[in-house]
Amino acid sequence: MYTVSVRDHFMIAHSFRGEAFGPAQRLHGATYVVDLEFQRAALDANGMVVDIGLASEVLKTTLAGVNYRNLDEEPAFKGHNTTTEFLAREIHARIVAAIGRGELGPAARGVEGVKVTLHESHVASASYAGPIS
Amino acid sequence: MYTVSVRDHFMIAHSFRGEAFGPAQRLHGATYVVDLEFQRAALDANGMVVDIGLASEVLKTTLAGVNYRNLDEEPAFKGHNTTTEFLAREIHARIVAAIGRGELGPAARGVEGVKVTLHESHVASASYAGPIS
Amino acid sequence: MYTVSVRDHFMIAHSFRGEAFGPAQRLHGATYVVDLEFQRAALDANGMVVDIGLASEVLKTTLAGVNYRNLDEEPAFKGHNTTTEFLAREIHARIVAAIGRGELGPAARGVEGVKVTLHESHVASASYAGPIS
Amino acid sequence: MYTVSVRDHFMIAHSFRGEAFGPAQRLHGATYVVDLEFQRAALDANGMVVDIGLASEVLKTTLAGVNYRNLDEEPAFKGHNTTTEFLAREIHARIVAAIGRGELGPAARGVEGVKVTLHESHVASASYAGPIS
Amino acid sequence: MYTVSVRDHFMIAHSFRGEAFGPAQRLHGATYVVDLEFQRAALDANGMVVDIGLASEVLKTTLAGVNYRNLDEEPAFKGHNTTTEFLAREIHARIVAAIGRGELGPAARGVEGVKVTLHESHVASASYAGPIS
Amino acid sequence: MYTVSVRDHFMIAHSFRGEAFGPAQRLHGATYVVDLEFQRAALDANGMVVDIGLASEVLKTTLAGVNYRNLDEEPAFKGHNTTTEFLAREIHARIVAAIGRGELGPAARGVEGVKVTLHESHVASASYAGPIS
Repeated sequence: MYTVSVRDHFMIAHSFRGEAFGPAQRLHGATYVVDLEFQRAALDANGMVVDIGLASEVLKTTLAGVNYRNLDEEPAFKGHNTTTEFLAREIHARIVAAIGRGELGPAARGVEGVKVTLHESHVASASYAGPIS
Repeated sequence: MYTVSVRDHFMIAHSFRGEAFGPAQRLHGATYVVDLEFQRAALDANGMVVDIGLASEVLKTTLAGVNYRNLDEEPAFKGHNTTTEFLAREIHARIVAAIGRGELGPAARGVEGVKVTLHESHVASASYAGPIS
Repeated sequence: MYTVSVRDHFMIAHSFRGEAFGPAQRLHGATYVVDLEFQRAALDANGMVVDIGLASEVLKTTLAGVNYRNLDEEPAFKGHNTTTEFLAREIHARIVAAIGRGELGPAARGVEGVKVTLHESHVASASYAGPIS
Repeated sequence: MYTVSVRDHFMIAHSFRGEAFGPAQRLHGATYVVDLEFQRAALDANGMVVDIGLASEVLKTTLAGVNYRNLDEEPAFKGHNTTTEFLAREIHARIVAAIGRGELGPAARGVEGVKVTLHESHVASASYAGPIS
Repeated sequence: MYTVSVRDHFMIAHSFRGEAFGPAQRLHGATYVVDLEFQRAALDANGMVVDIGLASEVLKTTLAGVNYRNLDEEPAFKGHNTTTEFLAREIHARIVAAIGRGELGPAARGVEGVKVTLHESHVASASYAGPIS
Repeated sequence: MYTVSVRDHFMIAHSFRGEAFGPAQRLHGATYVVDLEFQRAALDANGMVVDIGLASEVLKTTLAGVNYRNLDEEPAFKGHNTTTEFLAREIHARIVAAIGRGELGPAARGVEGVKVTLHESHVASASYAGPIS
């Protein structure tokens, strides 16, 4: 199995509901450094898993939809704790949708799986990995 | 599949038996930077894989059991070469036991797999991954 | 010249005023990974620049004063843009004050300089370095 | 499942054919930082996945076969775009062959899988993982 | 003293002349991950060392002048070994010139020093630091 | 000012004397990842600060003198706590001596300063910097 991975980041404010979150129930924020990984069993005619240039652009565009925002006020996340693992899946879904719309080019339709990892600090991260159905 | 990962470290002395180990047969030591990763297919009611605060505490407590020690004198490791890969499994077993005792909270019983990676330098690491039976 | 450096992090929300900040004028947030460095020309009687254990505790306590907060609502920062470089100096001042109060132990009074670096992502950081007067 | 991973690097020149590569169609180059990972379900009699010393030597020897070269002029790569993912598989094949020739020692024949990751910058990497048949 | 640092990268081919370079006399290449650091004694009216957004843009534009090229064929480097340390100074000179042309904004004229670090692998780097005259 | 930096590591056992060290008074150990930095104001005729190949070799040879050892039993360190900062200066002295003996080549006699940084974990490091007299 081949993979290609690209990295970017976004910076948001949010708060959590639930005693388990302790002081993180207060409004605070985070930088998320994002690793976006594409998986497929065979390379395309160019010898690529995916066009790295397009992958970087799509990741930047996708993160722009959440970057520099207070997630507590985003309608898309209403009723959810925007934990790192929740956000990893949300970004995963948006990337899979972008592949479906052809934004990574026609060859990217050969991608079989996507993994999104969000690093919230030098000591903690979360990820979501799933196939492209 | 979701994952959440937390990082800590411990510092030990030890030596190895067997010609394959060359100069590492002498008493020496290592810093192990540990990544502890929890895997599960669905988030809990709070939107978590595991409570990161509790996970960090349990990792610290678990590593305290080996930190600042000469592993050659630990009864638990008698008759074993405490290689990086051996220690990864040992810590894996102790984390799984802590989950079983409820130390990561009741929600953590939904965790399906655990992976422990020990970085022994900027160029070498080892890991053990296994399900929670 | 000797140095000793310890690392920790904090997570905050804030916004900036001024057109130069573009979308960062919106309420957003950041994780700051902090490197705190102590400098001195000669070691103390124990062979230390500073007690690393105490240094880590004082850094954690100092960061707790800003961690999990919306800096826009902190009286201490009223009228200031809490840029990464501004925060580096603020933490520098608080560490120097802690040394003055003896919280790093009496030997730490031999420290001659302190540098604080805040990493806001994998591609950007800021620092403030100054002597202990 | 256990893994052991070792790291080294190589530096090459190359160019790509195909419009998808944009300015990378010009002769340029790259440093590839390589992580070589060995996987097996059980440790050998020494408590090892693989002899780390031998693994590092074999990785260095394998990379010496491509290091400090213009890949456009290497017969082995004629007709191929030497993308990061293509090179990951090429190195994977050479490591598997070295295991087959016994260069990692007889115990390494117990290795079940190998993964090769090439980091081409702080923001992009590619890998190839496959079993040892 | 305050600093702000931004990171980007470029990928080139080149070769060296001189026996000291050994196999690096052959045409090969490198990825250089670049840290560009600005230093000044006091912040501007916005609380900035330099506009990070502009700094990132100017770094990208400056690196585009060498990115995806064979440095052996660049007239600007004729007669020079384009070692990592040589390139660090070259990029330093170009950044200082860009500040002089006002490309980092008028406030950036308060910058007193610039340091450029090029990481050529996970184990080697070089830098050039100098004042803005 | 130019710098060139190379990285390697060593692994030792030791213990500390003095209540300030807490549990580190027990026999334990550490991996030290070492950054060795050479500084000079002008490049040599080859465009180098120092021959990186020779620098890496001399660092490896120097570290071999302490690698895989119990520092409590090394006569050279008798009566000293082998703290990270103490070891940084020790290695600094040995590198300066190697330059004096010509082991880094005749051109390296133009090096004006050396800095040695020892990373003992992902959160702590120490360094010693000084001129070549």
